[in-house]
Amino acid sequence: MDDAIPLVERLRTVSELAGFNRWLEVKVATATAGEVEIHLANRPEFGQYSGFLHAAVVAGLIEIASGFAAASVAGNVIMSQFSVRCLRPAVADIFVARGTIERQGRQQIFAKATLGALEGEKDRLFAAGEAILLPVGA
Amino acid sequence: MDDAIPLVERLRTVSELAGFNRWLEVKVATATAGEVEIHLANRPEFGQYSGFLHAAVVAGLIEIASGFAAASVAGNVIMSQFSVRCLRPAVADIFVARGTIERQGRQQIFAKATLGALEGEKDRLFAAGEAILLPVGA
Amino acid sequence: MDDAIPLVERLRTVSELAGFNRWLEVKVATATAGEVEIHLANRPEFGQYSGFLHAAVVAGLIEIASGFAAASVAGNVIMSQFSVRCLRPAVADIFVARGTIERQGRQQIFAKATLGALEGEKDRLFAAGEAILLPVGA
Amino acid sequence: MDDAIPLVERLRTVSELAGFNRWLEVKVATATAGEVEIHLANRPEFGQYSGFLHAAVVAGLIEIASGFAAASVAGNVIMSQFSVRCLRPAVADIFVARGTIERQGRQQIFAKATLGALEGEKDRLFAAGEAILLPVGA
Repeated sequence: MDDAIPLVERLRTVSELAGFNRWLEVKVATATAGEVEIHLANRPEFGQYSGFLHAAVVAGLIEIASGFAAASVAGNVIMSQFSVRCLRPAVADIFVARGTIERQGRQQIFAKATLGALEGEKDRLFAAGEAILLPVGA
Repeated sequence: MDDAIPLVERLRTVSELAGFNRWLEVKVATATAGEVEIHLANRPEFGQYSGFLHAAVVAGLIEIASGFAAASVAGNVIMSQFSVRCLRPAVADIFVARGTIERQGRQQIFAKATLGALEGEKDRLFAAGEAILLPVGA
Repeated sequence: MDDAIPLVERLRTVSELAGFNRWLEVKVATATAGEVEIHLANRPEFGQYSGFLHAAVVAGLIEIASGFAAASVAGNVIMSQFSVRCLRPAVADIFVARGTIERQGRQQIFAKATLGALEGEKDRLFAAGEAILLPVGA
Repeated sequence: MDDAIPLVERLRTVSELAGFNRWLEVKVATATAGEVEIHLANRPEFGQYSGFLHAAVVAGLIEIASGFAAASVAGNVIMSQFSVRCLRPAVADIFVARGTIERQGRQQIFAKATLGALEGEKDRLFAAGEAILLPVGA
């Protein structure tokens, strides 16, 4: 990535390259090296059968936030493994996923992410997860 | 679920209730008690930045297939925890996810799922994962 | 558990009931509702082939700390699922594992734990993990 | 590892290097490239509070079997991440853990393992798990 451009702008550009992110209309809200926050405005297409956020979308936000946190320190990465805990039914107007780096190694990057609501209390999480990402040689 | 209606039809009806499944246009292809196969025709909106199936959609298919496998034996369920291993870049015209039951307990159901291509070899998997689901009291 | 006895004492008694904990000589160092710290003095029998703490023992400490954190709020529990990330080679005289509750539900308890060294910096972790535990009816 | 010596012998030698494996007295029973079976004769020191196999030892056997499966194709490896599902209380005279390779990549190896009883039915599993291991440069 081009270091002259602010990190948050570079991640927004990367996000726009992914068809799925464009469809979600997920926003990179803030980004520093090792910590990235994304926002998603809720839509009916994101629901499961009773209207909560679909666990597949929950996982998607955990995945995207973890991946961007890894990308914020390591550039291009690919997902190797991730896991998600669905702690509570996810209901919000705007969902917030925050990805952070747990450990940056040479061979792999350990990242983690939480999912909550923009309008909610910071500690009231809908989901949390962890991921392993591999740096892709430039 | 109404036992007079074939299982595959009942799961299709459940799938249609979820906004995200409708958007994916994911199909319940086959279903027996404890084993469910779903198909997804690829579209550009499912891609990550280099055009492979987005890891978020990979996770979504693992999640849906695991959940339907659990639902095939336990009716309504909610997702508690799941994990996904991205074994290879996922490229196909039609993706196939197959969910099976590993262990059905009274308090929780262990399910697992694999993701491959309809047109590919059966053993060449793009991803695999495991899930814990909770039965929802009728 | 008998509420008249301090939590840390009750957990020590529970720990002594487990043959594996007795063999480890793992100590319950501190305990409050939802947070438990255990200590393990290193011994040669805990090593892997190059002398670091064996990943099986790493997992064991994560498991025990998560389980005690759950027990500190829910009494008897059984382990359902857990995962461990080996972040760095684990070398110490005294290992410290700290378990906390992520979410206490009626059907299941989400706990997490970290592993570090008593003599090290608090943030330098050897491993981290998450667990799901089920409360056992009294 | 020296290719002139049968794989099963080489893995037994590696196992003897680990203090924890020696204490367990875990046996490498069979080994082919990508599939390794280990046996453990039960002892009181392996128990949890009600006498079942301690979840920490369950995890240890899953970890060792996965690691040996990876070592059978890649030589020296280190554990990166693993997860364990405790499907049933583990009770047996001789425990059997079978590790297999799910995917061998250049950067990482995906392995999995199951835990059952030597004297039991093959399909009645106490636990199952998955692991990611990293090859260590020769």
